[in-house]
Amino acid sequence: MEYAKGRIGRVFTVRIDHGDDLILELIKLAELERIESAVFTLIGALKEAKLVTGPKESVTPPELVWSGFDDVHEILGIGDIFLKDGKPEIHLHAGAGRGENVKLGCLRGESEVFMVVEAFIFELEGISARRTADREHGFAPVGFEQVPDLE
Amino acid sequence: MEYAKGRIGRVFTVRIDHGDDLILELIKLAELERIESAVFTLIGALKEAKLVTGPKESVTPPELVWSGFDDVHEILGIGDIFLKDGKPEIHLHAGAGRGENVKLGCLRGESEVFMVVEAFIFELEGISARRTADREHGFAPVGFEQVPDLE
Amino acid sequence: MEYAKGRIGRVFTVRIDHGDDLILELIKLAELERIESAVFTLIGALKEAKLVTGPKESVTPPELVWSGFDDVHEILGIGDIFLKDGKPEIHLHAGAGRGENVKLGCLRGESEVFMVVEAFIFELEGISARRTADREHGFAPVGFEQVPDLE
Repeated sequence: MEYAKGRIGRVFTVRIDHGDDLILELIKLAELERIESAVFTLIGALKEAKLVTGPKESVTPPELVWSGFDDVHEILGIGDIFLKDGKPEIHLHAGAGRGENVKLGCLRGESEVFMVVEAFIFELEGISARRTADREHGFAPVGFEQVPDLE
Repeated sequence: MEYAKGRIGRVFTVRIDHGDDLILELIKLAELERIESAVFTLIGALKEAKLVTGPKESVTPPELVWSGFDDVHEILGIGDIFLKDGKPEIHLHAGAGRGENVKLGCLRGESEVFMVVEAFIFELEGISARRTADREHGFAPVGFEQVPDLE
Repeated sequence: MEYAKGRIGRVFTVRIDHGDDLILELIKLAELERIESAVFTLIGALKEAKLVTGPKESVTPPELVWSGFDDVHEILGIGDIFLKDGKPEIHLHAGAGRGENVKLGCLRGESEVFMVVEAFIFELEGISARRTADREHGFAPVGFEQVPDLE
């Protein structure tokens, strides 16, 4: 475990509209407002999306399992924004339901908003956090500059 | 996309008790404390609830698909509170699990708390937001008074 | 319903690493930083975990139904931290997805992080909250010292 201690800074209440690409809009907002570290929640509906729903085997680097849908699902999501190579990167986990069917995973790439998604972005102030690629393990963990050692 | 920039104001830590109606209690609290804009998370259990789990077709106005349950499900939810016609309106998406069965959608109308639901309401300060009915599309999107144009 | 009104205090951005036990790490952090009341969200993946997914019957004290998994699932969770008998106790509801399979319930006991879990802990400031055992009903509801009466 590593962690950083900060405060909540600016809070963005966001309405993402019918037909928009969810992750692209979040990146656009992060760039415009120069958001470097944030956590967010969102609710709404998506007409289509792709989700990573686990690695095939329990090894790293993971071989990804992809799921997705192309009919409207209600969603709820929790995510974060950190810089990687100087650009905001979105990490978003979401559950998606339609009728009796539910999927849950890491929402990535293109998606299409149906009617509306409402997002609430809490900027993390007073911390210095960055994602750095770890090619051996196939991900880009977030790291902090000043981290107490808990071990 | 439209958005408003604010801060977190008051935070309400709420215990909703066995037998209570979840959404009614949230509205009662919003009215008592004059909460006009807020985002919240919650966890707990419900004995019964109704969920919108998607439109039948991918068109607006949507023809709603309803799901629900009448035995106890564990839940987690993300929601918001905004005024519509001067009264607080709750928009709440929740996942609900029981055994191997999971539902996820927009929780609406009557429900009954089992044992307890714990809710955390973050008031959004410094923004002016309202829901306004859009009858053509069959919903009431939130709008902001001072909104930068991102297009 | 009972509630307490406060503010957000310190915010902890936490990276919990491969192989760690999720709830143990959260408790370790709460003890180290003397966190008495907090709400948190998290996303990541777990290689194994156990979930309470409802009571067998809709009665209290509940006879618990247990689910779980021992292959990697993507997760999202919402939880809180309050003191019980002077020690931080974690209440965490999570959804977990792998392929087309989803579980949702109250994550308890041992679990094992796969690659990473990212958690965001919002300290609740200005409230006085404690969990107290209610043996008759089989749980430990949170209570507040200064609570307005809404009835």
